[in-house]
Amino acid sequence: MSELEVDAVVFDVLGTLVDEPAGIHAGISALAPALDEFEVERLLSVWQTHVEREQRRMVDGLRPYATSDVLDLEAAQLVADAVQAGDARAVAALGLTGRRLPPWPDTVAGLTRLAERFPLLALSNASRPALLELNAYAGLRWHQALSAEDARTYKPDPAVYRLAVTVSGRPPERLLMVAAHAWDLRAAQSLGLRTAYVARPVGDPPAPSDTFDLYADDLPHLVEQLDRRRK
Amino acid sequence: MSELEVDAVVFDVLGTLVDEPAGIHAGISALAPALDEFEVERLLSVWQTHVEREQRRMVDGLRPYATSDVLDLEAAQLVADAVQAGDARAVAALGLTGRRLPPWPDTVAGLTRLAERFPLLALSNASRPALLELNAYAGLRWHQALSAEDARTYKPDPAVYRLAVTVSGRPPERLLMVAAHAWDLRAAQSLGLRTAYVARPVGDPPAPSDTFDLYADDLPHLVEQLDRRRK
Repeated sequence: MSELEVDAVVFDVLGTLVDEPAGIHAGISALAPALDEFEVERLLSVWQTHVEREQRRMVDGLRPYATSDVLDLEAAQLVADAVQAGDARAVAALGLTGRRLPPWPDTVAGLTRLAERFPLLALSNASRPALLELNAYAGLRWHQALSAEDARTYKPDPAVYRLAVTVSGRPPERLLMVAAHAWDLRAAQSLGLRTAYVARPVGDPPAPSDTFDLYADDLPHLVEQLDRRRK
Repeated sequence: MSELEVDAVVFDVLGTLVDEPAGIHAGISALAPALDEFEVERLLSVWQTHVEREQRRMVDGLRPYATSDVLDLEAAQLVADAVQAGDARAVAALGLTGRRLPPWPDTVAGLTRLAERFPLLALSNASRPALLELNAYAGLRWHQALSAEDARTYKPDPAVYRLAVTVSGRPPERLLMVAAHAWDLRAAQSLGLRTAYVARPVGDPPAPSDTFDLYADDLPHLVEQLDRRRK
């Protein structure tokens, strides 16, 4: 692979920059405070499985496109049904839980450092309104924040990564995609983007067969590696 | 008018946050260093008149939509023709001048302060790639940056302001549009957005008949007025 030279950095958001399970976990506990930890974890899994499966079905053309807000509301309803709790208002509130996710401790400072060096883009499966709220809640600021909603599909559909390529005005090999999910990086890589895996407790770790351009323990480690290459 | 209570702030970029004439002025001087100040100012006016007229024609349906990059390249060609200078490469470089505009001195700190209090959106007539570059160059970071290109038209077409309303997920009266151009604020106001005029040396000052919600000398003055209302 040629020397890594990138002109812009593209970030996955959910999981990579914010602790998505923690936010949804908090929402479920708020809906049904009597649940024990084991039960909350099980319902969190119900939520995540639903959203992932339905996004996959949309990418595969098995379900018409619907925004992440619709999927989150469906997941919230599944959780509420399971615990037999919650009127429509409580379900709606739980459905918005995905907009109040805490950043990882290194996220805000890491983005600020990278923004001084590169055009910085978000590329998220969150809907446009959800991404705005999430960015404001977690303190994530961008030169451009792109939602998969613009392509009316979800990552890993190639159309989503093409959004970033088009808006950047650059060839894909000049963009660095950063994510804590190997599946996300593989899809970006297949379109020619360069890739950086960042380890997070909630991610999808690389397989031995993956060959990403960079592997980082956290954002400071990523910044350090990029700085070293620019000298 | 009811008490001003806003949930999100929407900013015009060109002129309001960056010194657009200064950037284009520098580009023209770089193309033809022998020009005197008077001549550079005249060519700057040729540029701006062309872009404004053609945007207006697109809004009025008299010309098919073309991005701001196309208009900037046309303006660059007019300037190059006028001074009989510049091969295609130099014209292309001049056409990109609109992506390298200096921020006003209070811009970056002002946005940072507002981002701590409100979801912060850009709403610009710059194309999506131009807006990305401009934000990175001038250090403008957003929770969401919207380009009129998304609506394939230009401000003051109502479709552009509707982008901000849709993405915000809020009623228009909960959004505050900030601009140094009265024409921009009038259009936002007619859709129900709240409005704040910020004085800049290059703007379009309010007429006596205008009734904007806030009038600010600069961004610190705007922040101060918003803070006072939140107490």
